[in-house]
Amino acid sequence: MSETHSATARAHPNIAFIKYWGNADDNLRLPANPSLSMNLDGLYTQTTVTWLFEPNADRLILNRQPDTGTAFRRVSAFLNILRARLNITGSAQIESFNNFPMGAGIASSASSFAALTLAAVSAAGIQLSERALSTLARLGSGSAARSIPGGFVEWFTGQSHDESFAESFAPPDHWDLVDIIAVVSSEHKTVVSQEGHRSANTSDLQAARVAGAAERLAACKTAILSRDFKRFAEVVEHDSNLMHAVMMTSRPPLFYWLPPTLEVMARVRQWRADGLKVCYTLDAGPNIHCICVKNDAEQVRQELSALSGVVDVRAALPGGPAALVDVNG
Amino acid sequence: MSETHSATARAHPNIAFIKYWGNADDNLRLPANPSLSMNLDGLYTQTTVTWLFEPNADRLILNRQPDTGTAFRRVSAFLNILRARLNITGSAQIESFNNFPMGAGIASSASSFAALTLAAVSAAGIQLSERALSTLARLGSGSAARSIPGGFVEWFTGQSHDESFAESFAPPDHWDLVDIIAVVSSEHKTVVSQEGHRSANTSDLQAARVAGAAERLAACKTAILSRDFKRFAEVVEHDSNLMHAVMMTSRPPLFYWLPPTLEVMARVRQWRADGLKVCYTLDAGPNIHCICVKNDAEQVRQELSALSGVVDVRAALPGGPAALVDVNG
Repeated sequence: MSETHSATARAHPNIAFIKYWGNADDNLRLPANPSLSMNLDGLYTQTTVTWLFEPNADRLILNRQPDTGTAFRRVSAFLNILRARLNITGSAQIESFNNFPMGAGIASSASSFAALTLAAVSAAGIQLSERALSTLARLGSGSAARSIPGGFVEWFTGQSHDESFAESFAPPDHWDLVDIIAVVSSEHKTVVSQEGHRSANTSDLQAARVAGAAERLAACKTAILSRDFKRFAEVVEHDSNLMHAVMMTSRPPLFYWLPPTLEVMARVRQWRADGLKVCYTLDAGPNIHCICVKNDAEQVRQELSALSGVVDVRAALPGGPAALVDVNG
Repeated sequence: MSETHSATARAHPNIAFIKYWGNADDNLRLPANPSLSMNLDGLYTQTTVTWLFEPNADRLILNRQPDTGTAFRRVSAFLNILRARLNITGSAQIESFNNFPMGAGIASSASSFAALTLAAVSAAGIQLSERALSTLARLGSGSAARSIPGGFVEWFTGQSHDESFAESFAPPDHWDLVDIIAVVSSEHKTVVSQEGHRSANTSDLQAARVAGAAERLAACKTAILSRDFKRFAEVVEHDSNLMHAVMMTSRPPLFYWLPPTLEVMARVRQWRADGLKVCYTLDAGPNIHCICVKNDAEQVRQELSALSGVVDVRAALPGGPAALVDVNG
């Protein structure tokens, strides 16, 4: 490239209803099991990539601060993969920010690598299908594959790099679910997900969790497509419990729950027994994603806010696909 | 029998280090996996059985109150089994009490059925081996099989009634472990263990837990025999985590942990990392059994007492076998 090419993309984080935990192939990030998620509207990572004709000069500005640490190294390693696979030469100047704070109970790696992939590819003047973008984003962070398509999304395991991508099976307006996130801790988690995925196979229970994932995913997809909240709630909580069962029986064990986490989980089960359409799901952290129908969202939000262990509450509806915001080339 | 025969027996409760959860045969209470436990000294059930030549007149006085409810029905059903297997005729008058309160974090069914078995058999003038007593006690409550022998005990799964019994592999004075029980709730549990055992197979994870149990038991036994606290702690906590992983992934899920339970578990792991010889194990309830070496017991007790979620703390050393207290015949 002899000129400067720049592109800006936005992508939403997503919340998995059928969890990704553990890889069949760590290098390619081929997951051990298929997963299913919903993008989170209103929350996004926005990333601008500018390709410069200059070797070995990748730069990252993250949330308005130059970063040369862990985040930079992970981004630069991912750029090396993109350069190799797409025959891009030169260095990338990257400016990225999240409109949601760290420690808000929302993982930022999915939206970050989805936005980075779309911006980097577009800035290089390359047109790729959504499938190809999802496939590439997966190499940066597994769950980023799911932040490329919009709405309700399934990520296929695949047997090879090209087969492992995510696609939408229902648009954002299909079902007005709300993810109400109860933040019980804003401490940064001590085990990053990448290391957690590698530990999955140290649990005697992982194989059984993986073996049932396709069936749970099919049940969850059917429940979403038919807007059957009762079945949806059962399989979503069950799948979350299964992932945390694997985590806490890994060696060494991973305990992500804090005392208020357990309190909120018990409350959610009780609220549902009392008639509210709400269920919980937890990622690799202590905060609780309370998924409810829009009609019950305000009540759930108020109930959560009243609990002493809950320090913050935020809400998101189903979000759209990763998209370009502005291109200067 | 033409005369009155009476006997009084005491048995200790036990704490399992390798857990019993789920049956291969519900009627015979043949367990899905072998288990390993330690009797708890100082705590006991004391039971007097008097056989009367009078049909259909079983009576139970439990903790000084006549009982005609759930406890009576379970005891009477067990007496029917004893009558059939040992050719005893007549009715039993039973007086039983625990020297520890309900809701003290200690299951009483093991000590109750162990004491009842020994008293009932002795009162009928029958001499049985420890193995035969353990086998019979199992029919009343699975873990009662382990409260017949003394000290550190292994319960073999067996393929038939006669093969499924517990025996001691080390006497009480082999290792001065202390079980310091942190009581976080004195509410009576809503799911009794019997029903829980039946739910074990509804978890996709039970088969994997069971498959590894013999290996964990061998590791735990070796650690006890060599007084290797580090290995002991790892396998004991792991096995407890595995059982609770199965419970919380059963359908419907069983969550026995309360918020302070999680807090104590995290503290215990931290105290061990800081050098105290302590680990945790949890039965089907929210209270935490903190197993430590005698030298560290006082510090563990003080640390536990200082936690706001802990409402009571009690301690027990390794206990002896079920034994007769007094016989009038």
